Amino acid sequence: MNDRLLKACRLEETDKKPVWLMRQAGRYLPEYRKLRRDRDLLSLCKDTEAAAELTALPVLKFGVDAAILFADIALPLEGLGVPFRMVDGEGPVVEKPVRDEWGVKNIREFDSSRVNYVYETIRLARSILNDRVPIIGFAGGPFTIACYIVGDVGSRDFPLARSLIHMKPRLWRELMEILTMAMAQYSKAQVEAGARVFQIFDSWAGSLSPLDYEESVLPYVKALVDEIRGRGVPVIYFTTCSAGMLELLRRTGANVIGIDWRVDIGRAWRSIGFDVGIQGNLDPAVLLGDRDSIVLRAGQIMEATRDRPGHIFNLGHGVLPETPPENVAALVEFVHGYEEDGVEH
Amino acid sequence: MNDRLLKACRLEETDKKPVWLMRQAGRYLPEYRKLRRDRDLLSLCKDTEAAAELTALPVLKFGVDAAILFADIALPLEGLGVPFRMVDGEGPVVEKPVRDEWGVKNIREFDSSRVNYVYETIRLARSILNDRVPIIGFAGGPFTIACYIVGDVGSRDFPLARSLIHMKPRLWRELMEILTMAMAQYSKAQVEAGARVFQIFDSWAGSLSPLDYEESVLPYVKALVDEIRGRGVPVIYFTTCSAGMLELLRRTGANVIGIDWRVDIGRAWRSIGFDVGIQGNLDPAVLLGDRDSIVLRAGQIMEATRDRPGHIFNLGHGVLPETPPENVAALVEFVHGYEEDGVEH
Repeated sequence: MNDRLLKACRLEETDKKPVWLMRQAGRYLPEYRKLRRDRDLLSLCKDTEAAAELTALPVLKFGVDAAILFADIALPLEGLGVPFRMVDGEGPVVEKPVRDEWGVKNIREFDSSRVNYVYETIRLARSILNDRVPIIGFAGGPFTIACYIVGDVGSRDFPLARSLIHMKPRLWRELMEILTMAMAQYSKAQVEAGARVFQIFDSWAGSLSPLDYEESVLPYVKALVDEIRGRGVPVIYFTTCSAGMLELLRRTGANVIGIDWRVDIGRAWRSIGFDVGIQGNLDPAVLLGDRDSIVLRAGQIMEATRDRPGHIFNLGHGVLPETPPENVAALVEFVHGYEEDGVEH
Repeated sequence: MNDRLLKACRLEETDKKPVWLMRQAGRYLPEYRKLRRDRDLLSLCKDTEAAAELTALPVLKFGVDAAILFADIALPLEGLGVPFRMVDGEGPVVEKPVRDEWGVKNIREFDSSRVNYVYETIRLARSILNDRVPIIGFAGGPFTIACYIVGDVGSRDFPLARSLIHMKPRLWRELMEILTMAMAQYSKAQVEAGARVFQIFDSWAGSLSPLDYEESVLPYVKALVDEIRGRGVPVIYFTTCSAGMLELLRRTGANVIGIDWRVDIGRAWRSIGFDVGIQGNLDPAVLLGDRDSIVLRAGQIMEATRDRPGHIFNLGHGVLPETPPENVAALVEFVHGYEEDGVEH
């Protein structure tokens, strides 16, 4: 197995820098559009053969060092009995937003069997890839899942979730406990199905003030990270807009902190500490530019993280749908080529 | 005149800490909803008597230390001949998004007379307030205006504007030049009408990587700040999600840097430098909580900035529509009361 990703999570040297991209199997790929057809994203995720094919595709097509489970962050809501639908351009929209005691009471205990198709996708993808690279399992962080559950859809900075912390602090803690337990079970089943690394997408946690994050979210993230690491699986904890709370991210206990493009990666790594890995952080918008632009910006990231193990090259968030696939190929080639001779080319 | 705001912009001591709130005359106020009636926001802005009344209202109602011009960030698009409409919950939507040479060529030179109603609002508000407090004029920063012009509406992090920088760098510079010149003229006319302080809302500039901001946006902001300061008017430069580029914000040359709630204000001020003022940064979501919550979080900001002139108390972004007006009153009272006896109460 190509174990660059696993080694980087353990801060060990690798022959080449590991690289994978969030949403590497997304809408920018003609293969995705063909498999998606006129179905919604949810149906595609439940077609385990198609989902497994998409999971494996970027490894076969671009030579990235990891496959990430093809799934949507909202899928485990099915296991919680929280109905939702996928709205193009908005993401998952729950039918009855949960904002009061009654709503929280109606969330069911997580029934893992309702998302068996997720675990099946991991098993199928492993067999397609024949364990050529590790498969990354993933789940939303408890705050980010809460943003969907309270109905903070279409908003820029999740005011409903943020204000619930202040309006109903006891209810908030209850919700966090339910979601943390659910994500722990969900991650456990993914690991049992063969996920070798786990990424927590707490994509919206950076919309909180550092104090609110520290008091009302961090303890739950830490518990979830502990749980997953306890199973021997390294954890990547990803957020965006979080340059103001890097030291708090370290306190999650994750092996690797994933950052967005809004901060210099060299500085961020220094703030977090070099005894923790870092993942990121090319602006996905750069992949819409020309090759010179890509090489320039990717090169700056390579330079800022060189001669130090524990950096996983990635974008700062998902691949944009307008991205030309050949630019993804050029990026992966550049990253893998860089370490070999130590100069940009 | 209550000159606390002006003094804070000059880093001079004040008897009480100056406080005003972004969107202090917004949808949370019954008076706003009554004046708005079934009109769209644009019509309300053009009703100069109503707009002037709304500009003055928070001063009379809550005793804030400044009135900010009641207007929308998109209004100067009228002066550029770029048609748009206001969409509730989305903001301004331009009819023909500008994304190529042809689009940029079709932007007209800024015709200030097409937004005379803005300047008239300032004059009327001054006469209502009888110069009791300074009026803050405002304009969007060139990047933020560009986000609207390229049609990056409804997006979370403005990928169209961000990618245009890499796809068409020459066109980007042209667009920035046009918008910077327009905002310079727009601010000039506001100052002539009586604005005593000017805030540049570059609300979305924090969606850029520090390098892209530095190379492709900062020079234009700096030119705009120079222009306004050259007229003897202090400038507040406001962004969100920008904790990863605080030192770059300093280089705009603004008198005061406005930050959002995603960073500890004491730390941010240290990074920016105490020879520049700072504005912020209570999470607007806190105003949906109870009084204890408000006093706790506002008190932490007072504590982090105490014994040092140059802090303007504000939220980290606009007042949320669901905010109870009495909570705004409680906040203003708390901030004004704090300095008097030096303890929280």
